[in-house]
Amino acid sequence: MSYTPENVQQIVDLIMNDYGKNRHIDMMDNDYLRPNKEVIINIIGNLLKIVYPGYYRDLRYKSYNQVNHVATLIEDVTYRLHQQILKVGKFVEEVSDLSYDKQEEKAYNVTLEFMKRIPIVREYLETDLEAAFEGDPAAKNFEEIILAYPGLYAITVNRLAHELFLLNVPLIPRIMTEHAHSLTGIDIHPGATIGKHFFIDHGTGIVIGETTLIGNNVKIYQGVTLGALSTKGGQKLKGVRRHPTIEDDVTIYSGASILGGETVIGRGSVIGGNAFITKSIPAGTRVSIKQQELQFSERSSL
Amino acid sequence: MSYTPENVQQIVDLIMNDYGKNRHIDMMDNDYLRPNKEVIINIIGNLLKIVYPGYYRDLRYKSYNQVNHVATLIEDVTYRLHQQILKVGKFVEEVSDLSYDKQEEKAYNVTLEFMKRIPIVREYLETDLEAAFEGDPAAKNFEEIILAYPGLYAITVNRLAHELFLLNVPLIPRIMTEHAHSLTGIDIHPGATIGKHFFIDHGTGIVIGETTLIGNNVKIYQGVTLGALSTKGGQKLKGVRRHPTIEDDVTIYSGASILGGETVIGRGSVIGGNAFITKSIPAGTRVSIKQQELQFSERSSL
Amino acid sequence: MSYTPENVQQIVDLIMNDYGKNRHIDMMDNDYLRPNKEVIINIIGNLLKIVYPGYYRDLRYKSYNQVNHVATLIEDVTYRLHQQILKVGKFVEEVSDLSYDKQEEKAYNVTLEFMKRIPIVREYLETDLEAAFEGDPAAKNFEEIILAYPGLYAITVNRLAHELFLLNVPLIPRIMTEHAHSLTGIDIHPGATIGKHFFIDHGTGIVIGETTLIGNNVKIYQGVTLGALSTKGGQKLKGVRRHPTIEDDVTIYSGASILGGETVIGRGSVIGGNAFITKSIPAGTRVSIKQQELQFSERSSL
Repeated sequence: MSYTPENVQQIVDLIMNDYGKNRHIDMMDNDYLRPNKEVIINIIGNLLKIVYPGYYRDLRYKSYNQVNHVATLIEDVTYRLHQQILKVGKFVEEVSDLSYDKQEEKAYNVTLEFMKRIPIVREYLETDLEAAFEGDPAAKNFEEIILAYPGLYAITVNRLAHELFLLNVPLIPRIMTEHAHSLTGIDIHPGATIGKHFFIDHGTGIVIGETTLIGNNVKIYQGVTLGALSTKGGQKLKGVRRHPTIEDDVTIYSGASILGGETVIGRGSVIGGNAFITKSIPAGTRVSIKQQELQFSERSSL
Repeated sequence: MSYTPENVQQIVDLIMNDYGKNRHIDMMDNDYLRPNKEVIINIIGNLLKIVYPGYYRDLRYKSYNQVNHVATLIEDVTYRLHQQILKVGKFVEEVSDLSYDKQEEKAYNVTLEFMKRIPIVREYLETDLEAAFEGDPAAKNFEEIILAYPGLYAITVNRLAHELFLLNVPLIPRIMTEHAHSLTGIDIHPGATIGKHFFIDHGTGIVIGETTLIGNNVKIYQGVTLGALSTKGGQKLKGVRRHPTIEDDVTIYSGASILGGETVIGRGSVIGGNAFITKSIPAGTRVSIKQQELQFSERSSL
Repeated sequence: MSYTPENVQQIVDLIMNDYGKNRHIDMMDNDYLRPNKEVIINIIGNLLKIVYPGYYRDLRYKSYNQVNHVATLIEDVTYRLHQQILKVGKFVEEVSDLSYDKQEEKAYNVTLEFMKRIPIVREYLETDLEAAFEGDPAAKNFEEIILAYPGLYAITVNRLAHELFLLNVPLIPRIMTEHAHSLTGIDIHPGATIGKHFFIDHGTGIVIGETTLIGNNVKIYQGVTLGALSTKGGQKLKGVRRHPTIEDDVTIYSGASILGGETVIGRGSVIGGNAFITKSIPAGTRVSIKQQELQFSERSSL
């Protein structure tokens, strides 16, 4: 059969006309003013290679050219991240008012500052690696954790994105953590502050909100929410502390929800599976939900 | 060491023999009669670029050639989607009986009809975009929502797939929504009907069944199931209304399950976290589960 | 603006110095001693084409060269898998002590043994395919299940990985199932033993632990955990039976948790949604949680 160009032209006209309606969905700023998701995902990949030098190398580098290899990765990330940070400057008032040259310089300084923090991030990640090995009887060795554990992947991306968040870089940290969310089902907002020796087991369905504070040696299972009590206020709540504080040495079992900006889970507490908590818990407390009343009946037919 | 070709040949023989058992798994229709998952995923990507013209462009197009750019995308999607729809015609009785030419023509008309509905889908998505911004205090701007929010991604793919579903196209809509499910953890069947200004927060673990009806201004959190009471009937339930009705202005908090084809959640109701609902709820009702009885004990050892 | 090479060099020095700290994160064995995640994901793709000959072919092969096509795939998988298995030999004591030639031979024999088991895996998968069609009223045909159902994808990768696990191959099976976890939200440890005619509906959030035993005709919904009671013992629990036994003909509805190595769900039982079970259930029992006490109030304001 033959295609009729008129048909396609009709659709083009229809859609071009639709673009003219000046809604949010129709915004067509020039592309170079927008961060590029694919580039940011590529940056994540290269950051992982820098963070875990022995694991994520895709080519065979011998040890004597390790320096060159790392230098190349660092240059690449620095260059690309600089470009992306420059693009999101328009969302920061005190940046968007600057001249283009000043914006470029500011973006470069932020990029360098971020890169310099990688050793601090690696210091934390070493403790996360140990936490995963100690916490999971199914863990056979460290390689398995680095190559296969979604929890370590999510916390790695989060710790990197959090540094950008602290440096007041908009949008890019969120694109980074949402990429990790997509791959792992673990949704940690880049604003969340997380201490050392953090272990996420299984992970799917975990939500950790923007203003959450988590201490050291905390262990969290699949389906746990550290969330807000209500977001009915919408944009009026922007910047308000809405998510809980989890102190050191706390374990939170699967499916538990801990909600609210004034809720503090005290040091060393253990929160049982499916517990729904909206008030503070004193240190050293074991919280469990009262044994469910289960009903048993004979299964009538198969 | 040397590979022994006999060993590999032995395995080839074993598996070729296994293919001869005439089971479902052995079906080997010629490939050109099957839809191609990779092509369909590619179509989704191009549809997103058409739907959000300012955001998903991967190349730098200046505004004066925007028309050419969009025309190219539309031609590409129209051509490929036509080919894929043609391939799934065999699953629709009244199509598979037609001559090849008639099938091709029918597939083309369905494709054009789908493309013409894109402005309607965009009208809905503009309201979803607003709902996300209004509903989430962590949302910094519209760009962030379009580039990073899994909920908007899932509803975008669902609204597109739903139009194909309404046009009676088999298989392709489901491949589309399962692709979104894979990326977001949000499982919306293309049959589900969803009103304007729909907001999904976080999203992982959401299940929305085939015959669900959702009104306007509905807000749903992670882990919510809008499901069937029982699927024990299996294929005998095909086509039967099995999933609930959610009226306008309803909010459903995380982990709630609402089940059954006769269950109606009345206008303006709020369903609390983890509620398990199998009966209708009148309009304007706030439903919460009775405060869990929590048990507290001192943690014996760390 | 101009980039200052000194800045980048400073970061390179900082990070090279950080690599010298001799922590787990700094391990830099030569790359060829590590399994390659991308190669393993590629092997999964080709195994899927072998397992489902009619569905996953990306090129148009006519039936008369089907043999050649399959032979090519089998040779490719055999060769690459052999290389990967060789690399993980160092984690198995009785292998790492062997000479390189002996290690290579052992890896080759394990690879061949794995390939020979593909027909057995396919026999099981045919029953899974039937279980999905029978169990889901929304399933329109077998093609849809193979091309779109995440549950079938997860069980396919799991059945393949489980054979490698049984052959005592470290790391690779876990990388395989975690890839499936990433795509589907279904986390099945390769150690889990699963009977015929297994059906996972929706699937996101499912966790099935390493020492779980599942019989025939079992059906599991989204958010179900078959887990350990406590992993407080960490590495001391390695190898201990920690996860439950699910006998034949059991159905487990969404959000239920069944925990503990001594917990047995008897034949034909039905476990209701959100049930939390840590003790054995006799055969033929229907278990449900006592009707939640819901609280209703009028919604004060919208």
